[in-house]
Amino acid sequence: MANEVEGKRVIKVVALCGSLQKASYNRGIIRAAMKMCSESMVEGIEMEDVNISDLPMMNVDLEVDDTFPVLVEAFRQKIRETDAVFFATPDYNYSVTPTIKNALDWASRPPNAWADKPAAIVSVQASSKSGQYHLRQIGVFLDIHFINKPEFFVSAAEPPQKFDENGDLIDEQLRQRLQKVLLALQAFTLRLASP
Amino acid sequence: MANEVEGKRVIKVVALCGSLQKASYNRGIIRAAMKMCSESMVEGIEMEDVNISDLPMMNVDLEVDDTFPVLVEAFRQKIRETDAVFFATPDYNYSVTPTIKNALDWASRPPNAWADKPAAIVSVQASSKSGQYHLRQIGVFLDIHFINKPEFFVSAAEPPQKFDENGDLIDEQLRQRLQKVLLALQAFTLRLASP
Amino acid sequence: MANEVEGKRVIKVVALCGSLQKASYNRGIIRAAMKMCSESMVEGIEMEDVNISDLPMMNVDLEVDDTFPVLVEAFRQKIRETDAVFFATPDYNYSVTPTIKNALDWASRPPNAWADKPAAIVSVQASSKSGQYHLRQIGVFLDIHFINKPEFFVSAAEPPQKFDENGDLIDEQLRQRLQKVLLALQAFTLRLASP
Amino acid sequence: MANEVEGKRVIKVVALCGSLQKASYNRGIIRAAMKMCSESMVEGIEMEDVNISDLPMMNVDLEVDDTFPVLVEAFRQKIRETDAVFFATPDYNYSVTPTIKNALDWASRPPNAWADKPAAIVSVQASSKSGQYHLRQIGVFLDIHFINKPEFFVSAAEPPQKFDENGDLIDEQLRQRLQKVLLALQAFTLRLASP
Repeated sequence: MANEVEGKRVIKVVALCGSLQKASYNRGIIRAAMKMCSESMVEGIEMEDVNISDLPMMNVDLEVDDTFPVLVEAFRQKIRETDAVFFATPDYNYSVTPTIKNALDWASRPPNAWADKPAAIVSVQASSKSGQYHLRQIGVFLDIHFINKPEFFVSAAEPPQKFDENGDLIDEQLRQRLQKVLLALQAFTLRLASP
Repeated sequence: MANEVEGKRVIKVVALCGSLQKASYNRGIIRAAMKMCSESMVEGIEMEDVNISDLPMMNVDLEVDDTFPVLVEAFRQKIRETDAVFFATPDYNYSVTPTIKNALDWASRPPNAWADKPAAIVSVQASSKSGQYHLRQIGVFLDIHFINKPEFFVSAAEPPQKFDENGDLIDEQLRQRLQKVLLALQAFTLRLASP
Repeated sequence: MANEVEGKRVIKVVALCGSLQKASYNRGIIRAAMKMCSESMVEGIEMEDVNISDLPMMNVDLEVDDTFPVLVEAFRQKIRETDAVFFATPDYNYSVTPTIKNALDWASRPPNAWADKPAAIVSVQASSKSGQYHLRQIGVFLDIHFINKPEFFVSAAEPPQKFDENGDLIDEQLRQRLQKVLLALQAFTLRLASP
Repeated sequence: MANEVEGKRVIKVVALCGSLQKASYNRGIIRAAMKMCSESMVEGIEMEDVNISDLPMMNVDLEVDDTFPVLVEAFRQKIRETDAVFFATPDYNYSVTPTIKNALDWASRPPNAWADKPAAIVSVQASSKSGQYHLRQIGVFLDIHFINKPEFFVSAAEPPQKFDENGDLIDEQLRQRLQKVLLALQAFTLRLASP
C-alpha cells in the first residue's frame, strides 16, 4: 500500500462480478468503474477485475494436505492483497448468486482472507434488494466492513436505456451515482486504514 | 400422486443435500430419513435423494433455444414431479451453500419448478441459523411453502456423538427429532393438497 | 367458522395496521379492503379492523398472576378467534414498525395466539421491502403461514395519485391488486382449513 | 470529544436496553459494562445508560411544527452527542424488541441522529440470533457502523448461573467476553474517528 497520487495513498480494489453472463450489466458496471479509476473521475484507486467464474464448486474435500486447488489459492491471494472489495452482482431469487457465494466461501476458509476488508456492493438486477442484505449479513461472519451509503440498485428494465447491446454503461446519471459509490468506498478504506 | 398405503396417499419427497463433502453429516441425515421412510417409522413417504452436485454453475447463457443443459433439465423434471422437498444443508458463512443456491436458481427458471411445493429444511452445521432463514426468504419468491415447525438445527460438535465415521446417524434422540420433521412435512403436504 | 355464503364458508379476517398516523395510507388500504369484503368484489370474508394502538409497550412484568392487561387480553382473544390475519403496514427503517412488533409480541406470549394462522401482508411505504421479510421471519417462530404471492408493495410517492387527502384509496388498478391479495389469502385459508 | 486518559481520547458511549423488565439480564449486562468502564477493566470509555422506556410509541403525527415531544428530543440529543452506541437487548420472536425499534425510529427522523455512529450489540436471550441481524440491517439505512466481532450471545438458561436474583452479572468468563466487546467498540470508534 505504498503508492501515492499527489500525496494521497492509492488503494487497490478487487472487483468481483456475480453473474457469468457474457453481456452481464453488472460486468458492464465493473468496466465502467475501472475506466473511471483509470481516468480523472476517480483518482487514487487501482481496480482489478478478478475472475471467479472458474472456481470449483465449494467442497472442503478439495483441500488436500492444507492446500487449496490452484485457482482457489490464486483467488485467495488476490483477496488477501487487496485493500478493498467491490462487488457487482445481481440478486437471484432474493439472495446472492451461487457464483458470488462460492467465491465468498472459498476465501473464507482459514485463514479467512476477507478479514477486516472494507467493501461496497452495486447491483443491476430485477427482483429485490435482498441479495445485498444477505451479502451484508454474510459479511458479519467474514468480518467485511461494508459502506452503508450510497446504496446502489439499478433496474435495467426502466427507461432510459442505461446499457448498450454489449452491456456497456451509457447513462451519464448512472455513471455519476457509480462514481459516488467508488468515492465512498475509497474514503471509508482510508478512514479505516489510518494509523 | 395415486399411490396409497392403507387408504392414505403416499407422497413423493425429493431430498437435496447442500454439501458436497463425502462424509457430510447432512447426507447422513438424508440416508437416515430415507431409511425411516422405507421402514415403519414414517409411512406414506417415498423419498428420493436427487443429486445436485454435477449441475453447471448457474448461467442463463447455457439456456439455448429454450433448452436447458441435460443435467439441469433432468433435475427440473424431478422437482416438477415431486410432491414436496426436503432440504438437508449446512449453513456456510451465515447463508445458503452455493450448491443449494445453484439448484434453487436452475429450477426457478421459467416455468418455475418450485411453485406451490411444500418443503422442510434440516441442518447439521456449525455457525448459525441464518442459512435456513435465507432459504425461507428465497422461498417467498419461488413460492415454496416451508413448514414452520419443528425447526431442526444440530451442532455435530456437541456431545453425545451423533454420527459415526461414515457420517451415519447413530443418535436415537436425533432420529426421533428427524421423524417429527418428516411427519410434519407429510401432514402439511396432505393439508395443502386436499381437494 | 359456521357461516356460509352460497355453500362457501365465510372466513373471519382480522386487519392490523402498523402505522399510528391519522391519515395513514396503510389504514386507507384496510378501509378499502373492508369495503371490498362487504361488497361484491370479495365474497366470503368478514374483515374486522382491530385496534392495536393502545396496547402498552411489551413488558412481561405486566403479566401478573397469569393475567394480561385488559387491552392485551382483548387483543389476544381477537387473534385466537380469527381464521386469518391481514397486516397493512409500512416499513420503518428497513424493518417492522414498533406498533406491529408490539402486537406480535403480546399475542405470542404462551399460549401463542398466532399458531397456525394464515396471513397476508401489504405495504404502502417508502424505503424497502425488508420490513415484510422481517415480519415473515418472525412468523416462522410464531407459526404463521404467510401467502407467498401476490406480494404487495406500493410507493405512494410515484404517480398516479393513489390516495386522496383523507388517505382513501382512489386508484382502480391498485384496488384490483388488493383484491387479488384478499382472494389469495381466502384461498390459502380454505386450503389449510380443509378437513 | 476532548477528554483524554493518559494521552488517549476518552469516548462517550450511550447504552440502550431493549427490555423493560425490572430484573432484565440485558440491563444487568449494562450495569456490568458501566462498572468496567468506571474501573480499570476498560479505560477510556464514559458509558451512560439512557432510558428509552418512556418514549411515546412512534407516530410522526406527534411531530408538531418541526418539534418532537420533549422526551423524544432529549433522547435524540443524547444520540447526537455520543461517540458510539452500545445496544443490550434480547431478541423477541426472532427480531428486535418494540422498545429498541421505537427508539431507533424516533432518532432516525430527519436529521437522522444515528448517522455515522459506531455501535455494538450484545444479547442475553432465549430464541435466536435473528434480532441482532435485523438490527444490523436497520443500521444500513440509519448509517450505523456495527463492529463485526466479537459477536455476543448468551443463553441465560444454560449452566453455570450467570446472573443473580437481581439480574447482576456474576460470571467471570462472561465478564471477560463483555470486556472484549467494549474494547472492540472502543478500537473501532477511534479508528473511524481518526483524522
